[in-house]
This record gives sequence, C-alpha cells and structure tokens, in this order.
Amino acid sequence: MAEGYSSIPNTPLLKDELDIVIPTIRNLDFLEMWRPFFQPYHLIIVQDGDPSKTIKVPEGFDYELYNRNDINRILGPKASCISFKDSACRCFGYMISKKKYIYTIDDDCFVAKDPSGKQINALEQHIKNLLTPSTPFFFNTLYDPFRDGADFVRGYPFSLREGVTTAVSHGLWLNIPDYDAPTQLVKPHERNTRYVDAVLTVPKGTLFPMCGMNLAFNRELIGPAMYFGLMGDGQPIGRYDDMWAGWCTKVICDHLGLGVKTGLPYIWHSKASNPFANLKKEYNGIFWQEELIPFFQSAVLSKDCTTVQKCYIELSKQVREKLGKIDPYFNKLADAMVTWIEAWDELNPSGAAAEKPNGPAK
Amino acid sequence: MAEGYSSIPNTPLLKDELDIVIPTIRNLDFLEMWRPFFQPYHLIIVQDGDPSKTIKVPEGFDYELYNRNDINRILGPKASCISFKDSACRCFGYMISKKKYIYTIDDDCFVAKDPSGKQINALEQHIKNLLTPSTPFFFNTLYDPFRDGADFVRGYPFSLREGVTTAVSHGLWLNIPDYDAPTQLVKPHERNTRYVDAVLTVPKGTLFPMCGMNLAFNRELIGPAMYFGLMGDGQPIGRYDDMWAGWCTKVICDHLGLGVKTGLPYIWHSKASNPFANLKKEYNGIFWQEELIPFFQSAVLSKDCTTVQKCYIELSKQVREKLGKIDPYFNKLADAMVTWIEAWDELNPSGAAAEKPNGPAK
Repeated sequence: MAEGYSSIPNTPLLKDELDIVIPTIRNLDFLEMWRPFFQPYHLIIVQDGDPSKTIKVPEGFDYELYNRNDINRILGPKASCISFKDSACRCFGYMISKKKYIYTIDDDCFVAKDPSGKQINALEQHIKNLLTPSTPFFFNTLYDPFRDGADFVRGYPFSLREGVTTAVSHGLWLNIPDYDAPTQLVKPHERNTRYVDAVLTVPKGTLFPMCGMNLAFNRELIGPAMYFGLMGDGQPIGRYDDMWAGWCTKVICDHLGLGVKTGLPYIWHSKASNPFANLKKEYNGIFWQEELIPFFQSAVLSKDCTTVQKCYIELSKQVREKLGKIDPYFNKLADAMVTWIEAWDELNPSGAAAEKPNGPAK
Repeated sequence: MAEGYSSIPNTPLLKDELDIVIPTIRNLDFLEMWRPFFQPYHLIIVQDGDPSKTIKVPEGFDYELYNRNDINRILGPKASCISFKDSACRCFGYMISKKKYIYTIDDDCFVAKDPSGKQINALEQHIKNLLTPSTPFFFNTLYDPFRDGADFVRGYPFSLREGVTTAVSHGLWLNIPDYDAPTQLVKPHERNTRYVDAVLTVPKGTLFPMCGMNLAFNRELIGPAMYFGLMGDGQPIGRYDDMWAGWCTKVICDHLGLGVKTGLPYIWHSKASNPFANLKKEYNGIFWQEELIPFFQSAVLSKDCTTVQKCYIELSKQVREKLGKIDPYFNKLADAMVTWIEAWDELNPSGAAAEKPNGPAK
C-alpha cells in the first residue's frame, strides 16, 4: 500500500477515499490557490455563524456545505454537541463524511513553498504520512525511516521496524506560528521561517499540542476520537478545540497501538488572530490545561476498550470523575462527549456503508 | 547562562570547561579540518590498539594522550572495565577528564556544511544545546523552543516551559548514515543528504539509539552513566558500546529529571565501515537488543537513587538479575559496570577538584 502512490503519480492519491473539511464564515477565495491540489477531491464545508449568509465557493470545486440549520436538522437534539461560533464546528464534517480519510485546513492557510521555491502539495505529503507506518515505541534519530533516503539506524530493534498503522498526520505552518495569546502579546513580530525537513512519530506515552489548521487523519481508525469539544458561543473557553481532540486522540492511539506523526507538510499561515480576543477565549484553558495534561498523561483505558467509541466513552467517564471538580464545564463536556459518540454511531452505522440521512445544503 | 554565549562571540564557548575526547588508532590528520573550531580546546586522545605505535597529532593542538599502558598503569586491575581494540575505550577519556563538559568525535568525521554552504561549527551547536533547557515532559511541535525564532506553541502547559537541565546533546551525520550491518549490506549506496534543521528533546520514557560519533554531554551531571561497556577484544560483541551507554543514560536521565537532545549539529561522516566485519561484531547484539530494549523500557530505579553513581549501581544489579540469563556476558558486564563506577570515584573524589593520579603520556 505504501508503494502504491509512487507508481501512479498522475492519479491524485486517495481521490475517492478522502474528504477535505473546511470550517468557515467567509467566501472561500483561498481555494483558488489550492486549486491544483484540491480540485480533484470532494470538500465538506462547515459554515459557522449566521446560516442565512451565503458562502461563495470558487467554480469547479465539488463540495457539500452545511450551515447551522443543516446541523440542527440532521442531528436534532444531538446537535448540542457541535460548537457554534467557533471553528470547533468542523468536527461535524468528520462525522458526516463517509470517506476513509479526512484532511482539514483553515481558510487563512495558503500554499507554502519549500526552500527550493517549489509549491508544497500539503495534501500529498499528509497522504504519504498516513500510508506509511509510524514508530511510536522507539525513537529513530534520522526521523521517519520510511522516507526516501532514510532508514532505521544502528541500534533500532528489528522487531519494531514494522511499525504500526498511522492514524494521524499533523502538519505545520510557516509564517504565523500557532502561539497562544500570551506568547502572541510578547512576541508580536515573530514569524516561523524555519523549514524543518522532517516527519516524525510522536512517541507512545508523549502528549503533543495538536493544531487543527493543517491536519489529516484516518477517519475509519480514529474518527470518533476527533471531537473538537464545546467551544465558542455559550462556553467558557475557546481555542482549545484541537488541543482537546489531540490529547484524547493521542491517549486512544497509544491504547490501541496506532501512530501519530508530526512535521511536514507546511502550509503558509497568513494572518495572526487578535491576541486580545484570543486571551479572552484562552484564559480559562491556560489555567485548566495545567490539570488537563497530568490527567491525560496518567489516563489508563481498560482492556475492554477495543474500539475508538469504547475508549472515548471510557474517557468521558474519567473526564466527569476527575475533571468535573475543576469546573462544571467539564461535566457538560463529558455529556457532550457521549452525545458526540451517539451522533457518530447514528450517522455511521457500524459495518454498513451508510447513506447520508439528509441531503446536504449545496 | 544560556545567554552567555551570544554576548561574547569571540571567546570560544566554555573554552576552559570542556574536553574533546577522541579515540583513535591512527595519526590525527582529520584535526586539520577542525582546527578553526577545536584548537582553543583541550583534547584527550585515547589511543587504542598497539601502545608502542606513535600517533601523530597536528602542531598547535593542546592535548594529552593515553595508550593502553597508561590506562593499565592509572587504573590498575580496574583497567579491566575499559575495552580494548574497540572505540568503546573512549570512555576512559570521560573518566580522566576534570572538565564539566565532554565532546567526543570519531576520527573519520569531518566538518559538514549547512544548506547555505557554510561550515558547521558542530561544537558550538552542541554547547548551545547543552546550555539551554530540555523539554522531556511534553512535545513541542516547533521542536526546540529555545532556538531563535521558535517558542512553545499554543497548548503547551506554562508550568512545563522552564524545562529541565540538558545532560546530553546527540548530534547527527551527513553522508554515511549510522546503519547496522544488515542495513549496510542491503543499502550499500545510501547516503544521508537530508539536512534537518532541528534540535529536539527525546521525550521522557522514550529510548533512542545514541551514536558516539558526534556526542556531547555534561560530565558533572551524567558522566558516570556514560560507560561504553565491554566491547572488542575478548568480548562477544562490538558496535553496541554507544547504544549501551545511551540506554543506561536515558533511563538515568529520566529518573533524575535531566534532558537529552538530538538533532543538530551534523558532522560529515566520511567512510562506511566494512559491513561484513560489522556483522561479525553485531550479530549477538542484534539478537540481544530485542531483550535489552524491553529491559530498559521497564527499568525502574528506586527513590534512593539520588546520584548517577547510585543509579548506575542499581542498574548493574538489574542487568545481572534480568539479563544474566540471556548470556553470561551480561554478568561480566554487570561486574564491569561496578568496576567502572569504582574507578570513576577513585579518579573523581566527590566534592574535590582532584589532581590527576598520574601524568599523561604526552
């Protein structure tokens, strides 16, 4: 399978097996720059905010679009688990997709260039990352041993060289780095100009800050863990949607023996968000994460947790039990985690390639 | 301290606090290329093989040289813990040094160039790595947050941003990669041409294959763990000296809360060793490492182990107990680990800046 993509270079990789999910509140002019790379793929656009607004999508793209009315209609009362006025709403797109793979990107992200000046096909690199194994049990000092020109180095146990299936490919950003509000405030002019030519597996037992700007995953393997939580409208926190998903996902990947990679590909992140607005969204999270990280670092899932759904329900119980005392928000979040899984299973009846329950709003 | 080196760029960093340790069997012509970078520092040359041979050192370098006769004279019966006819003998240099930091390099390693064509001052980068903290408890997706132009990303807990003291800086190699004999045999023409512009902390709980070709460490903090084992003459194994040291060191660093970095700087590794000769040295190790890795992954040191020496003695007991059954070699190795610590403490009386017991052979 890993060899498949190099033998047929002219057919876009996984053309019929991958959806691109884009949360937005504006016209999607940014797609023009991505046209050579994205046009062969199907898009799922999740429109946030005012549903009466019309989002323009450039000609020639194949897409379905869901606004809040669609989400409410499709999920009914379970729509409560999908955030509003926050890009966390994107996870509705993961749920409604019927494809094996998801790539999600923010609408302020453009095509980056590698040091030779060549435009980076971010999606192609993500697919390569997903189709080659991860190596979470032992660190390889030459990074991804499955890249051309690299391998496992001396001292790497042979029994671990098969690796494990990759579930997540986390890509990075040139130009505006993904900093929190305090760091934005302190370093307003810092830009990420360093192109690090590496992909690596985040080791088992190690948590990382997963950013949703430029992210791909195997929906079949890990989709139900990619819940972006309750953020934005009516919630005491924002900008922790992808972090929450990343921590839950990593704990579950570690438990199920799946791999998470980070590094290439880069996208060009065009504009910094407002640090004052961000601080308002983040400040609870900045406190809470000090307790969340030890919680996730010590979370253990029982042996009965053999599916992502079972893992996630088990995790929701631990959230209620151990984080509920920090703030009532976490009880609400634990409920929403359960609702999310119920909604996921409703839209994705196990074993069957289900039809979508309602037509999209295209 | 971390800022110190940038404010006085014309004084070589840590000039009086660092020794360069070079194991060799030949004239050290390779030092000519390193002259601009190494000449201000003191060298400790450990001559392997026939002690009657004269090793030529280029003019102008400040060095001391120890051959096997010197090692036997200085350590007496304890010299048995120092390997012969194997570059593992280099660890004698770590023991005899009185400096705070060690840089060790192989004599077939030359100055590499960065992608802009500039010669890389490997030692300077190692020193930067050692003088800035490590971050073993949580992965930073923009790699070393202490490099210029980088920082901790959104979602990185603030309480972990102070990091921990760095004990080890593991550098990499362009051109000939550090492959084992089977990989050398299968890929005789593979060269490492990828310059990955990153330094990163090996996360807590994750083991890595530490190569001794281009390695720096804080001798005061971790020196007694940098024992390169029993290899070469009279031993059933070779080419696992640095691996052994790396596994022991990582377990002890994790226990003591010290950091290990890998990545930059690169050196240019000039020639591949003979894969057939390597296979002969390695084949036992290839089997044994399958049991060694689980052993080190599950090794737990007791709370009483508050110094590197105590950790190392405790580890030697576990080696005897759990690895002795694989092969009698590990009982011998466990004995040598104890001897190594005894010899270390003899040459480095605690608290005192001891005089060298015997003059070097310069």
